[in-house]
Amino acid sequence: MTYTLILLRHGESEWNAKNLFTGWVDVPLTEKGRAEAVRGGEQLVAAGLAPTVVHTSLQRRAINTAALALDAAERHWIPVRRSWRLNERHYGALQGKDKKQTLEQYGEEQFMLWRRSFDVPPPPLDDDDEYSQVGDPRYADLGDEMPRTECLKDVIARMLPYWDGGIVPDLRAGHTVLVAAHGNSLRGIVKHLDQISDTDIAGLNIPTGMPLVYELAEDTLQPLKPGGDYLDPEAAAAAAAAVANQGK
Amino acid sequence: MTYTLILLRHGESEWNAKNLFTGWVDVPLTEKGRAEAVRGGEQLVAAGLAPTVVHTSLQRRAINTAALALDAAERHWIPVRRSWRLNERHYGALQGKDKKQTLEQYGEEQFMLWRRSFDVPPPPLDDDDEYSQVGDPRYADLGDEMPRTECLKDVIARMLPYWDGGIVPDLRAGHTVLVAAHGNSLRGIVKHLDQISDTDIAGLNIPTGMPLVYELAEDTLQPLKPGGDYLDPEAAAAAAAAVANQGK
Repeated sequence: MTYTLILLRHGESEWNAKNLFTGWVDVPLTEKGRAEAVRGGEQLVAAGLAPTVVHTSLQRRAINTAALALDAAERHWIPVRRSWRLNERHYGALQGKDKKQTLEQYGEEQFMLWRRSFDVPPPPLDDDDEYSQVGDPRYADLGDEMPRTECLKDVIARMLPYWDGGIVPDLRAGHTVLVAAHGNSLRGIVKHLDQISDTDIAGLNIPTGMPLVYELAEDTLQPLKPGGDYLDPEAAAAAAAAVANQGK
Repeated sequence: MTYTLILLRHGESEWNAKNLFTGWVDVPLTEKGRAEAVRGGEQLVAAGLAPTVVHTSLQRRAINTAALALDAAERHWIPVRRSWRLNERHYGALQGKDKKQTLEQYGEEQFMLWRRSFDVPPPPLDDDDEYSQVGDPRYADLGDEMPRTECLKDVIARMLPYWDGGIVPDLRAGHTVLVAAHGNSLRGIVKHLDQISDTDIAGLNIPTGMPLVYELAEDTLQPLKPGGDYLDPEAAAAAAAAVANQGK
């Protein structure tokens, strides 16, 4: 017996479309993003995959991606679990900033360091910034864990307790688990599963709206096939390349 | 201290619009129904009501009403619980039938008996009928509890265990509870709360998309004000009258 895990990155959001750093700002999906989510659900059906529980972040672009994909797959009625630990990386002072302008202002080296280094976070976001989430009721219980900026290392550190305590128990209970989340929280899961090094994870891009399926060994929870399987591999490869070129 | 309970009947579905008996058939909302749900969420905001947990049926018209209302109210991230016990009444052999045709075929007395009697269910739906839910994976665990038809008395009998075991614990934990469900499962809750007689419940109609708010006494869980409060009482009264005239 194996366990089935399906990772789904949210479709295009309004700030993806505007090429702004989003992070914890709770922007909605675009129409294109909604269509991506529906297509993701249709791909699940075509592959005969039926999630029995869904995990999402606390951000509407992931929540609505899950809802649209599951509705398209006739699985809208399954149990739902949510955690801030699946949120996108907090982009600190870059939240709300234009990616292209940021690149021009700070230069490619600093830009790529913030975007792709494992352990260098952008400057923290001021609590009174218009794009701060301090004071948002959904994060009221976080206390000292409330981030003001994060590098990928930080994302993984706050994500892993939910992987171990929230997702793994569902897998071990035999659930087909769908995780609808974000580029960086999903990279964290993939890094953990595929034991990717801190250096190599910089080169991993997860395309939006395309279910990535892992079969995991029952004893070790290791992937039977490193990297898993995209249900539409050619489209996924093309989309991942496009993500890698953002801001250029 | 009191507890806050908000009841929300789903907005117009495709079969509401076509005047068909729907029951357990899982039809989507119309655009009008989606707009009703959004307006319901906006009414919550205007009234300063912030649900902290949502309960829905397993049917997409309630699930999507909850999602749209909560998104409009910036509460899309709250915990979600679902149960078949909040489903609409199973309309038996009437599912998929035109209400006006049914009225003409069977006469007003039989029609109103099926629609409004407390304890007379329509004939059961055949398991091989195109509108049967037997074999639907979401109901696979129901066993002998899987209905083939229901009267309101049956709905209340299967709903109450979820009221006691699912909703009341959330109220007693201090949650502001939103229940997004259906005309008859919500009538069951209202009947229970307001101690309405088996006869008088026939005259109670709950309009779609309009939040109905109860404050409940901490000790007895009895409503402080019988019947609760609609956030838009005039619109609710007009809409309830329209529901009462369906099929006429």
